[in-house]
Amino acid sequence: MTTTVSPDTAPSTITAYPAYAAPAANAALERTTVPRRAVREHDVLIEIKFAGICHSDIHQARDGWGEGIFPMVPGHEIAGIVAEVGPGVTKFAVGDRVGVGCLVDSCRECDNCEAGLEQYCSGGSVATYNGLDKEGEPTYGGYSTHIVVDEAFTLRIPDGLSLDVAAPLLCAGITLYSPLAHWQAGPGKKVAIVGLGGLGHMGVKIAHALGAEVTVLSQTLRKQEDGLKLGADHYYATSDEATFEKLASTFDLILSTVSAPLPLDQYLSLLKTDGALVNVGAPEEPVSLNLFSVIGGRKSLAGSGIGGIQETQEMLDFCAEHGLGAEIELIRADEINEAYERVLASDVRYRFVIDTATI
Amino acid sequence: MTTTVSPDTAPSTITAYPAYAAPAANAALERTTVPRRAVREHDVLIEIKFAGICHSDIHQARDGWGEGIFPMVPGHEIAGIVAEVGPGVTKFAVGDRVGVGCLVDSCRECDNCEAGLEQYCSGGSVATYNGLDKEGEPTYGGYSTHIVVDEAFTLRIPDGLSLDVAAPLLCAGITLYSPLAHWQAGPGKKVAIVGLGGLGHMGVKIAHALGAEVTVLSQTLRKQEDGLKLGADHYYATSDEATFEKLASTFDLILSTVSAPLPLDQYLSLLKTDGALVNVGAPEEPVSLNLFSVIGGRKSLAGSGIGGIQETQEMLDFCAEHGLGAEIELIRADEINEAYERVLASDVRYRFVIDTATI
Repeated sequence: MTTTVSPDTAPSTITAYPAYAAPAANAALERTTVPRRAVREHDVLIEIKFAGICHSDIHQARDGWGEGIFPMVPGHEIAGIVAEVGPGVTKFAVGDRVGVGCLVDSCRECDNCEAGLEQYCSGGSVATYNGLDKEGEPTYGGYSTHIVVDEAFTLRIPDGLSLDVAAPLLCAGITLYSPLAHWQAGPGKKVAIVGLGGLGHMGVKIAHALGAEVTVLSQTLRKQEDGLKLGADHYYATSDEATFEKLASTFDLILSTVSAPLPLDQYLSLLKTDGALVNVGAPEEPVSLNLFSVIGGRKSLAGSGIGGIQETQEMLDFCAEHGLGAEIELIRADEINEAYERVLASDVRYRFVIDTATI
Repeated sequence: MTTTVSPDTAPSTITAYPAYAAPAANAALERTTVPRRAVREHDVLIEIKFAGICHSDIHQARDGWGEGIFPMVPGHEIAGIVAEVGPGVTKFAVGDRVGVGCLVDSCRECDNCEAGLEQYCSGGSVATYNGLDKEGEPTYGGYSTHIVVDEAFTLRIPDGLSLDVAAPLLCAGITLYSPLAHWQAGPGKKVAIVGLGGLGHMGVKIAHALGAEVTVLSQTLRKQEDGLKLGADHYYATSDEATFEKLASTFDLILSTVSAPLPLDQYLSLLKTDGALVNVGAPEEPVSLNLFSVIGGRKSLAGSGIGGIQETQEMLDFCAEHGLGAEIELIRADEINEAYERVLASDVRYRFVIDTATI
């Protein structure tokens, strides 16, 4: 580990920790080190134990969204143990079990931040990796042994949750929990989850635990057995046209987790009056629909992105209470590149998690 | 007037009343007669005084939506006086001031009907014209001197509203009132109305009366003076790109009344977090958008169609209380064809209303 002094700020120590990074767009990830600042007044140093692999890690490491900052250390599904705290930290102590999700800071002043919707911060939120912090320094994510994060963006992982299955909750869990809570999935509500992958399988678990009647809409029946075990009440193949006839006007809420463009008019026809089709996955390219598909039945085509910090804590507490972790395949760090290929081939049930002890 | 006996039902008398009808798709409307059934147990016979011309009348008379039933008597913005009541009628008496909107019947049994959302009836609602009633007979609309309607689909026009300016409320009024009420336009809310035509001008009046801060988004500033007089607080030209920069993240609710395809991503960028872009007008062809436009800020692209019967009565009472009628140009029946051309050229401020005494 090397120690340097940043020239711009009064003596601040940078420590380099082992990490896996993509040195450039589309390059394979390789072992390297990543600089972390010394803990400041409100920071915690976290010894990362597990980091989930999110589909968006692959997008960004391959610069699918453009403007990627390289070298890039992906990872925003982080679970670990507090190793050090700054003098002003009040929420955490050394040894606490903690997590970090997609955000490590926000403006903390705009209407959205004040409403606990930091994910929609209009003053500039700071992404956990591939972002720039308030000092203009690049952020580096969870494929690493350590990370330094402000306590305000650090979550408590309840004792009831193992750290490995908790890690994916920090993105996949909250991405599904937030819209399920916002659109009031619960007893008496019929909820469909489109796609049974990393996001979708958490949607099934959480919607079921919230008391909703849950249907999986997947391309084929290949994962039907899994889906029913995870808590789905029904499972249909969308490759079968009869599915759309049979399920017309059925759902209060449909959550789409897929990034392929869907035939939206068909999916909107599955909603009851006042129903919402909420997208948490989305294709890069524009989609098309006929507006009469929303006018008939006062329907909504909506979207939702991760969740706020307070809501993420609420989600972790809910998952602990109901015994909900992600279904994971634990991998070594040197398997990350292979895992990326398997994610792209939808060959994972249901989330890869890196054991950071192997970095 | 001729009287015939229908062969299918126990003695039922049909009376022919003067009307204007399109004899075939795209043919000019001409004077003719229209058959009306004798009042049944729960029917009222209405002497029509005024009938508004809705853009959709033109669509249907010109068979723009296909499957039109000809000859067609358009008109679903009807105001008149009760001339006769069936023996079971309890809500109305001869001489009452009444209106009829877009629906004259529904299944009355489905979830939507039971919730007062007859406009989304899943059992088969009956359109006021260009529809088939429960006996399979074509329905004929308000460009006529008389109509027979079940009292359950007849509205009371409060004394405070003149019948001529009340007629357009039965479609244009309720089409805007319903989403404004549903999406809770009111004090503290910023509402934009896209398009200042027959629908839009009622949107401005009603949103203002509900206490919202109202902005008109129109292609040009041509009608700005009118818009501000009608109750708008602000007026912007959408042909000016600066409008979209200036108004980014401004509105809680945007109601689009236009049938031209809008650049939806641009309009969605004008919404605050949790805002909704609600379409009450729509183009025939599919529209396109990028789903990230709704994911960022948990926004909704929604639709709304007219309103239920109880809500339509609520709207009429609200408009009477606040002195809100439509801005109209009263025309003679022999001016209908010319009026159609002027509507298509957006050359009306803001609704043509036919004086049915001239039929």
